[in-house]
Amino acid sequence: MQRCDTLIQARWCIPVEPDRLVLERQGIAVTDGRIVAIEPLRAMHDRFDPGVVVDRPSHLLIPGLINAHTHAAMTLFRGLAEELPLERWLREGIWPHEKKWVSAEMVRDGSKHAIVEMLKGGVTCFSDQYFFPEVVAESAIDLHMRAMIGTPMMDFATPWAENADEYLSKATDLVHDPYADHPLVSSCFAPHSTDALSDDSGRKLRILADQLDRRVQIHLHETTTEITNTMKERGTRPLTRLTELGLVNSSLMAVHAVHMTHEEMRQFSAVGVSVTHCPGSNLKLASGIAPVQAMLDAGINVALGTDGAASNNVLDMLGEMRTAALLGKVQAQDAAAIPASTALRMATLNGAKALGLDDNIGSIETGKSADLTCIDLNRINSQPVYDPTAQLVYSCNREQISDVWIGGRHLLDNGSLTHVDEDEILQRSVEWQQRIAAV
Amino acid sequence: MQRCDTLIQARWCIPVEPDRLVLERQGIAVTDGRIVAIEPLRAMHDRFDPGVVVDRPSHLLIPGLINAHTHAAMTLFRGLAEELPLERWLREGIWPHEKKWVSAEMVRDGSKHAIVEMLKGGVTCFSDQYFFPEVVAESAIDLHMRAMIGTPMMDFATPWAENADEYLSKATDLVHDPYADHPLVSSCFAPHSTDALSDDSGRKLRILADQLDRRVQIHLHETTTEITNTMKERGTRPLTRLTELGLVNSSLMAVHAVHMTHEEMRQFSAVGVSVTHCPGSNLKLASGIAPVQAMLDAGINVALGTDGAASNNVLDMLGEMRTAALLGKVQAQDAAAIPASTALRMATLNGAKALGLDDNIGSIETGKSADLTCIDLNRINSQPVYDPTAQLVYSCNREQISDVWIGGRHLLDNGSLTHVDEDEILQRSVEWQQRIAAV
Repeated sequence: MQRCDTLIQARWCIPVEPDRLVLERQGIAVTDGRIVAIEPLRAMHDRFDPGVVVDRPSHLLIPGLINAHTHAAMTLFRGLAEELPLERWLREGIWPHEKKWVSAEMVRDGSKHAIVEMLKGGVTCFSDQYFFPEVVAESAIDLHMRAMIGTPMMDFATPWAENADEYLSKATDLVHDPYADHPLVSSCFAPHSTDALSDDSGRKLRILADQLDRRVQIHLHETTTEITNTMKERGTRPLTRLTELGLVNSSLMAVHAVHMTHEEMRQFSAVGVSVTHCPGSNLKLASGIAPVQAMLDAGINVALGTDGAASNNVLDMLGEMRTAALLGKVQAQDAAAIPASTALRMATLNGAKALGLDDNIGSIETGKSADLTCIDLNRINSQPVYDPTAQLVYSCNREQISDVWIGGRHLLDNGSLTHVDEDEILQRSVEWQQRIAAV
Repeated sequence: MQRCDTLIQARWCIPVEPDRLVLERQGIAVTDGRIVAIEPLRAMHDRFDPGVVVDRPSHLLIPGLINAHTHAAMTLFRGLAEELPLERWLREGIWPHEKKWVSAEMVRDGSKHAIVEMLKGGVTCFSDQYFFPEVVAESAIDLHMRAMIGTPMMDFATPWAENADEYLSKATDLVHDPYADHPLVSSCFAPHSTDALSDDSGRKLRILADQLDRRVQIHLHETTTEITNTMKERGTRPLTRLTELGLVNSSLMAVHAVHMTHEEMRQFSAVGVSVTHCPGSNLKLASGIAPVQAMLDAGINVALGTDGAASNNVLDMLGEMRTAALLGKVQAQDAAAIPASTALRMATLNGAKALGLDDNIGSIETGKSADLTCIDLNRINSQPVYDPTAQLVYSCNREQISDVWIGGRHLLDNGSLTHVDEDEILQRSVEWQQRIAAV
């Protein structure tokens, strides 16, 4: 008999790779934080002597969900600026509050709130883009959440940096050093958008990203206003400008990509740019509906993100899968577009690919990290179960998520957080709300 | 001191009428199933001697949600026919199963499943359209749910009726008699769609609806295929044909109304037709996006429905509000379209108006029935609370619904169903699934 740390016995398992496979009554063995076997239960019982058995008889096991784009700390601004289009939302609703309130303390409390919200919602990795990224990283490590930390760049002063050079040097420090080989945290460059990126900064960024071999994520073609403004000011579309700056390559994560020509899709596909689709935020800010099925058909890797809680307003990847699957059908005028299995793949393996982490996470495969999420399907809103994938995407809600493991650590156990004082985190958010609303 | 049965003390209350009002720390007194007072807590304590006090310190009280269109029993087909467009979904995915499985027993079990799902999701009234409507009515009464029972009409035989005349006579029997003055159940005529309605049946239906003073609900302009087919076969759009049959008046509930010209909107507004918007189903079947803000601007009463669980796939009015609010923005290309307060109004008072029940339900007003829903906002995904209406629509999920009263009866009490054996109902659904999937 072979020893293993944990044996998970779930009624169903969707490993995501191979695509569309649904396993029934299989066991997943985990040792030293990694998946060591996926086999029928009987074979597992013959082969393994597990330290812990986790029995989930009415549950579905999937790879941990990957939120490929968020601004975690903005949970503290949830519901603060409602029903404004992107540009006014930023200028009137968000930036004045960020100028006043963003600090290391705010980013710590807001990020921890977001991480707990995501953990309880089955998310095991998120890609962040916010100020004080070093604090986001510490918060993720503290709560044992996997994260890619985007170091922000803007053209104006914020509480984190005074000017483009300071953003770049702080980002370089962070990318360079403390998380170089961390098992949970990696980093990338995260310029806000092309209209907040001077030519000079863009060129410096390209050199640094090449030298340090780091990915770049940027909000791109989110609204028609963004495109129209760049056309007016520079005579080109934002993507053309980004191409001229040398930033359009396989290290680029284009967030949103709502407004795309066929030629631009071909370009993304040819050079291997990943897109992060954020359908909830795109709807809420009336930005538009991204042509996701067309991008997938063109061979683009499309991941899924919630965006920040100030424009969504939840960090709920189950809900985001549902929105992506439903919206994708009406956008493509085809009820077969973005099937449930594709929505799940976008929220897992495609996310891992976008972040360059697919060697380690994104699917349930032997050798990969045990980043796993388990959902109880035996609820009034998800019975009967003819098709577990459809149930997961079209019927389940986040409260059905029973278990989450990250790197084999059991962080959510049958609905209870094992390592986090949720009440304390909630209490801090209420205190922030009182301070912010009092002004 | 005045006696009252129940005093509800919730942190916030949105009565819906007047529009956009948010009350804080008020009490709602209920006696004999009706709301008798809404006043600040201190005044309530001076005035009332309550039998029961329900204290909900972090909660939001709203009128019970009204699901203005569903096919309740189809919960048993949830996930059975995925990712097909409406016409193929009906012909290949649904009608063959209905022919095989629909019976009084199936409708009873499926409707009870749906009613429990809706109750737990804060729904206090639903408008149904399915076979064996008398069984739907009994199921609603049995579980103390408010319902409007639509009696179906189609051009072909089903397990409930052989031909148009039998549908009509059975419908007439039902509309006529047993529920004439029932406090919970009312009925209406529910022809499937204009393409399943012959001229002769349509004329008979109009006469009966007039004589019996009953409302008519019909799927209308759901897809472009429906419109194109009618144009080909009859040279008119379905609405024109319905107008010629004399059925377009203030008793009409037009379900879906996805594809509407400005002239058709003016017609609806002029004669007082209500529209039931079912955004989740319209997305899933790739039917299109209804121009809801334009319909509201035209003065049309727009209600909200989930449609059946086979095409949505949940009977979740909170989720449906969110979808309506988000989708309405991108459809109108305006982030201020369908604000949260409007989505809530669609899901409550507009629903009551569509069903002709707004004298009794749809808002928290003195004299109306105590059909109430309470939501706990103190969850990680809905804190902090700057704006309770935004939180309700954009951040909450159905599991946060703590309490439901219908006609003053406390059916969901702090998360627990008081009158229903949910496990027994779930078990029956699992048995149905085994029978249906085995074929």
